[in-house]
This record gives sequence, structure tokens and C-alpha cells, in this order.
Amino acid sequence: MKNAKQTTQCGPISALLADFIHAASWEQIPGPIRHEIKRSVLNYFAVALAGCSDPTLDKAVRTYARFSSGPAAALIGRGERMDMLNAAAINAMGANVYDYDDTHIPTIIHPTAPVASALFALSQTQPVAGKDFMLAFLLGVEAQCRIGLAISPFHYDKGWHITSTCGVFGSAMAVGKTRRLTPARLRWALGSAACQAGGLVESLGTMSKSVSVGNAARNGMLAALLAEDDFDGPARPLEGAHGFLRVFGDAPDFDAVTRELGKEWEIGKVAYKPYPCGVVLNPVLDACLALSARIGMRRLEAIASIELTSHPLLRQRTDRPNVRTGRESQVSAQHAVPVALLRGAAGLEAFSDEAVNDPALRALGPLVRFHDDETYSIDSAKVVLRFHDQPPEQEFVRVARGSLERPLTDAELETKLRDLCRYGRSGCDAGRLIGAVWDMEDGKDMGRLAELAAAPA
Amino acid sequence: MKNAKQTTQCGPISALLADFIHAASWEQIPGPIRHEIKRSVLNYFAVALAGCSDPTLDKAVRTYARFSSGPAAALIGRGERMDMLNAAAINAMGANVYDYDDTHIPTIIHPTAPVASALFALSQTQPVAGKDFMLAFLLGVEAQCRIGLAISPFHYDKGWHITSTCGVFGSAMAVGKTRRLTPARLRWALGSAACQAGGLVESLGTMSKSVSVGNAARNGMLAALLAEDDFDGPARPLEGAHGFLRVFGDAPDFDAVTRELGKEWEIGKVAYKPYPCGVVLNPVLDACLALSARIGMRRLEAIASIELTSHPLLRQRTDRPNVRTGRESQVSAQHAVPVALLRGAAGLEAFSDEAVNDPALRALGPLVRFHDDETYSIDSAKVVLRFHDQPPEQEFVRVARGSLERPLTDAELETKLRDLCRYGRSGCDAGRLIGAVWDMEDGKDMGRLAELAAAPA
Repeated sequence: MKNAKQTTQCGPISALLADFIHAASWEQIPGPIRHEIKRSVLNYFAVALAGCSDPTLDKAVRTYARFSSGPAAALIGRGERMDMLNAAAINAMGANVYDYDDTHIPTIIHPTAPVASALFALSQTQPVAGKDFMLAFLLGVEAQCRIGLAISPFHYDKGWHITSTCGVFGSAMAVGKTRRLTPARLRWALGSAACQAGGLVESLGTMSKSVSVGNAARNGMLAALLAEDDFDGPARPLEGAHGFLRVFGDAPDFDAVTRELGKEWEIGKVAYKPYPCGVVLNPVLDACLALSARIGMRRLEAIASIELTSHPLLRQRTDRPNVRTGRESQVSAQHAVPVALLRGAAGLEAFSDEAVNDPALRALGPLVRFHDDETYSIDSAKVVLRFHDQPPEQEFVRVARGSLERPLTDAELETKLRDLCRYGRSGCDAGRLIGAVWDMEDGKDMGRLAELAAAPA
Repeated sequence: MKNAKQTTQCGPISALLADFIHAASWEQIPGPIRHEIKRSVLNYFAVALAGCSDPTLDKAVRTYARFSSGPAAALIGRGERMDMLNAAAINAMGANVYDYDDTHIPTIIHPTAPVASALFALSQTQPVAGKDFMLAFLLGVEAQCRIGLAISPFHYDKGWHITSTCGVFGSAMAVGKTRRLTPARLRWALGSAACQAGGLVESLGTMSKSVSVGNAARNGMLAALLAEDDFDGPARPLEGAHGFLRVFGDAPDFDAVTRELGKEWEIGKVAYKPYPCGVVLNPVLDACLALSARIGMRRLEAIASIELTSHPLLRQRTDRPNVRTGRESQVSAQHAVPVALLRGAAGLEAFSDEAVNDPALRALGPLVRFHDDETYSIDSAKVVLRFHDQPPEQEFVRVARGSLERPLTDAELETKLRDLCRYGRSGCDAGRLIGAVWDMEDGKDMGRLAELAAAPA
């Protein structure tokens, strides 16, 4: 009776979501949303081409390759090939390893890595046309972001790595749509996905994080394949008394899963990072790069203090002195600010182990001061440089680049892909890949697009 | 600072556990504990030989086989072979599919399925001696049960499938011990295990449950293999501010992980089920089988009511009229009581779809009445049969068979294996397997023992 009472608090969410995904068609998708899908895929290849040569990937590939049934699918930026489950896992890891991928602002889910990785792997085992791919991708992103919305902000705050925990639903629904599963089977896929959801914030900054991101892509795909063979699951995997939303949420907003479904698209709330850092650093880095360009190296040497005025979240998330690794430095204002000022750069090289241990940068870290100001939005910041021997310099950024209000342009995304492709040293032809992504709507075979992102033989 | 404060509430639990597992030796293990390991393995093969032919397994094997890199390891009771990760998953599913496996009473974890499945799969890829296997098995069980203890009873009540969520640690530590990982690598394996922990109570009674049980075996193994290659993880995967215990627990009893470690062994609190049902039904079934034997079929037809007096948990867990599937019937007193009375049997056949739809049994279900009595322990029950035309009959069971106080004997476990082997129809030689398990302490190659449980060619 307890169960029955609890589940009356909400409608049949799992069934409604499955029905929606089953019925959704390309014609329903507005033009700007179609374009945003391409931008997400472009950004995906950009970050995956950077991540492909990280030691995390080298190690994961070494172990996963032992358990691959065959060379069905390409690895982005690499020469190895794996079966589609393992390829999905490795490519999702690569796209997310630097946390440089897209961000669904209301939940901070990185939505593309699990979904695109599963779909591209599948596309190399069966023909998938561009429009079908884009529709399935959109629906996967929609499912995972809405499920994440229903349990945010509690879920991440509690310690769940939301990209991993919710990504498994995105992968499952995208693959399920492409495999044309019935509504009942999509519901079962949600169930087997729910049973595989996992991932912890504690693992951020370590290789372990990548395991759960890879699992999200891999296991969502597995859930859909199992469901296709009538491997059944609970009737209410999301909203049941012991279902995903209640177990991973505190007081879930059930309605968030289905409210305005098909009218409002979550991909419209996705931003792409200009810097490989925690997003709260964006306005600070914009300001520091502007100051660096204006002032020049010589004057920077006479800095007495660097004052950051911002929303309190900046201090809460990035007041991290004395970090020791490149990965930690991505969420450290004490590193990000000096490197942007002194090197005039804030790309992946600026957040490497080498940069972290540069004595010139380490000397500036202790000069950073935080001033909380609740009137600032998280997209704005003021940086004031005070000198021993001259008047202060300051830069105010009202809206950071890469925010929803001031998104990266298509050209900036292309540049990001070219830069990151160079960083990852795969030898992949960035220009050709960029062209294929912009043309994907008319593509006949998304598997061939995926092959373009592999390292040349 | 918040993190620092929170983590001072407990010692370096992850490191202490890893150190303990690294240092533990066979000589430390008391004789009765050594014997209990063999009983656990015997019970494991029994339940896995029954589960091997369930449709859940057929479907899982069909999909997982597509992603197996080679025939490294046997599937219990089946003819297929798979790579060790997939074999570990499938065998864990088979051992747990009927929830007929061993139960760690304080947590209701089914500890053996994930741990033994990983270890037997590994043993088919490298030589593992009996004593090494038994030690690694014991340590895996110890790790997962203690981690489960620290978050019980909140964890399961909230909706986590504790066998899945904690089993991944058991598999990781057992494989890590066998691979002789250093303490630091064992800690990383705990981290990659923590990032893969998942599984929901909502899935019970559906095939989806088996996915997470399989993952526990598979992913724990993966975590250990990754750690062996220095794939790193967080320093405090269990006790960190966003680590496993705080995220999956409410007010974790951190100390439960390390208290009396090496002195008190959790395997000593494991019971083996006499019936394939929720354990609260054990005393009721004991009583009903005794009544059935005493009274005979003819008088049972004149039953007016069947009164169950017990701890309230019996009613809370098993008051389920009108179940429709064999699986649901395993937790339904309205089915369990009639079938034990009318058929004088309470094995897997008694909880099949066929039995559930037997009109004679369905007619008796509505006659079942529950009487809560807080003075009863959960291992005791009274069953009173009232007749239309004759005096009542009753049976009181003080301590159910299969409880910690009245465990199944070695001979009963052997019988369970023989019965379940027959049920599963694999054609496996039960007698030879039983002999090998009792002799495992002196065995040179546990991979060969695993081969004995495969279906004959």
C-alpha cells in the first residue's frame, strides 16, 4: 500500500517519456534546434580529439582492448578499433576527460559525450542516416537532461556525477530510438539503464571518473540492446517507489521529465566552454586575457595583488591554492588567473602539469584575493590588478564568452576543434571533419562521419 | 574546508581496508571460516546450476556473447564460453536470478554471486590455487559486507539493490588480492568500483535486476584490472566528502568497515536458503511442510482459514494476494502457504508460473490471515489451519531452517546442489562438483573446478 500511495504523486512518467521518444519525428524539430545538434557534435569531436591522447585513455584502451570482440568501431583520434560497446565507452571517456565538453546549464550535465559516443559506435555497425542520427541524438540528450532536472540540484550536491548517472538514459534512449524500439521496450531500456546508473563526484580529478562516463555510454547501449530482445524491466523505472528519481533524488520534481515535452528542448540550454575549466572561471579568464593583451608582461611582474570580484560561487568552487596537477588547476583561480595574465593563454596547455609547476605562475597565486558580491551573476566578474609602483588596472566582464547569453559562435567552435585537434596530435583532418558535421543533415551514413575522426592509418 | 571537516569524522577507511586486504594471509583464517567458504561455494554452484536455464540468462547470453572477446571462461550449467568479464557477469546473474543464494543476515547482501563469479572467471585465465582462491574470496566477501554494514539499513530501505551496489567492491577486492595488487592499487580499485556501483530495488522481479548483479561481478573485476595498470582513483573513495559511504548512506557507520577487521569475519553471519523465497517465509514454510506431511491432502480440502502468527515483517513483506508470475510468488504468502500445504513441496517448481496459475492453489490464497506479534523473532512463526468440519491443526516453528541459529547442514547443502542441478537440466555431474568443492583447499587449479560446473559438451 505504501508503494501505491507514493506512486500516485506523479503520472506514469516512464511510459510518457518512452511514448514520446517512440513517436518523435524529424519534422517536429525546429531549425535552430537542428543547428544546435550540429554544434554539439562539432564541440564533441573537438574535445574528444583533445582527450584522445590523455594517459587515462591510453590505460583504458589497453585494458578494454583485451575484452573487445572485434574492430567494429573507430576510436576518435586513435588508431585502434573496438566492438561498439567498448568504442562507445572509450570515446565518451575521451570527450569528457578534460571536462571541456558541453554543459547543460540547469543541471551541469555534459550531455553529448555518452549519447554521441553510443550513436556513432552503433552507426558503424548499421547504416544510420544523418537525420535519423540527429533525431536520436536530440532525444537522448532530452531524456537525460530532463531526468537530471527532476533531481537537481540535490543530486549533484549530494555527490553524484550527474553526467554519468543521467548519461546512461541518454545513451539508452538514443540507441533505442535508432533501433526503433516499441514504447514497452523503451521503458524496459529505461529500467536496465536505471539499474546501471552510477558515478561519484569524489572521483573528479582522477582517472576513475572516466570509468563511469564510459559506462554511461556503454551501458545505456547495452540496456537498449537487451530491451530489443525483450529483456524486461520494471513498469516505473523512473517514478516507482524505489525507482531512479526517488533513490537518486531527494524531493524529485517528477513533472520536469514530461513538462512541455516536444515543445521546449533542453539542448537549447547547452553552452560550450571556451576554456578547459570550471565554468565559473569563464568571466575571470575573459578579463585576465583582456588585461594581459593590454598591459604586457613587464608590468605584470610588478603586481601587488589581484582582486576578483564575483558571485560567491567563484570563491567556493575555485579558491584552491597550491594545486599540484594540471587537472586540479582547471578549478583553481590561483592557477587560472596567473596563467591567463602571464601567458595570455587559457587553453589545455595552460592547465598542464608543466604549467602548474612553473615558478613564475606559482609566485602569483598567493596574490589572488576573492571579493564576494551577490549582485554579480555567475557569468560576470571584475578583475583588478594592483601594482607596487603604478595605478591599478581593471577589467569588468558583464557576460562571459561561452555563456547562454553570449554563446561561442560557429566560427569559434570550428577554431576550438582545430586547436584541440592539434593539441591531441592524432593527425586527423580537422577541416574535413568540420565540413562533414555541418553537412550531417544530408548525410547517408553517420558511420563514415565517425571514421573521419579516427587517426589516419 | 567543508570537505576537510567532514572527512575528519572518520579515519582513512579506504586505506585501512586496502592495507588489510593486501596483508591478509591464509594462516590467519580460522578453520570454521575456511569450512564456511566451501559451504558458500557449494551453495553458489547449487543456485547457479538452477538459474542457468532461466530465460533471463538465455537473453543475457545472447546479447553479451556478441561482445565477448573469446572463450576464456565457462558459463555455469551452460555450453557457451565467454571472455572473463562477460563470464563473470553471466555467472553472477545465474547465481542470483532466483534470489536463492546466500544471505549476509545483517545487510541482506547476497555476497557470493559477484565475488565467486569474478574469481572463477579469473581462475580460467591464470592458475589460481585453492587456498589463494579461498583467501581472496573471503576478503572480497568481507569487504562488501562491511561496506554494506556501514550504510545499513538506510541503504536498502532507500531503494538500493545492496547485492549489486556493494558486490562490486567484493569482486574488485577479490580480484585485486589474487592479482597481488599493492595497497595503493587496491585503493584505486575501490575508487573505480565506487564509480560503478549501482542497482535498484525497483527492478526486483524483473530481468533488469540481473544486469546490475552481473555488473557487480564484471565491473569490480574491471576496476581491479585497471588499477593494476595504475589507472588511479580518489584517495578516499569510501569515506570522502562525496565518496561512496556518504552518497549511498544517510549517517554512515564508518567504523563498521574496519572494526575488528581480521578478528570477526562477516562470512560467519551468512545463511543459506532452504527455499527460493524471501527469508521471512522460512518458518512459515517449515510449518506448512510439517502440516502437509502430517495431515494429508484430503483434509486440506476442507480448510476454512489459514492463520499465520509472526513478526509483523512477514505481513509487510509477503502479504501479496493474486500474484501472476513465479517470480512474484517467491515473496507471496498467499502462494507460498497453499503450495507447501497442498503439494508438500517448496522448491523452485513450487514457485513457477505454472504453480501460480494452479486453480487449487489460487483457491486457498484468500484463506490466509496474518496476525502480527512483535514477540516473535523473524525466524519463528505459528500456522493454524481451521477446518469447516473438524478441530484445528497447528504447527509452531521456533527457529526456521536456514537461519543462523539452525543453518543448513553440509548434507542439506549437498542435497540442495543435487536438486537444483537436476532442476536446471544442464547435465552437469553434481557429485563430482561437490567432491571438488569439499577438496578445494588442496586444489591446484580453481579454473578446473569451474570447468566442472559447465554443461558437458
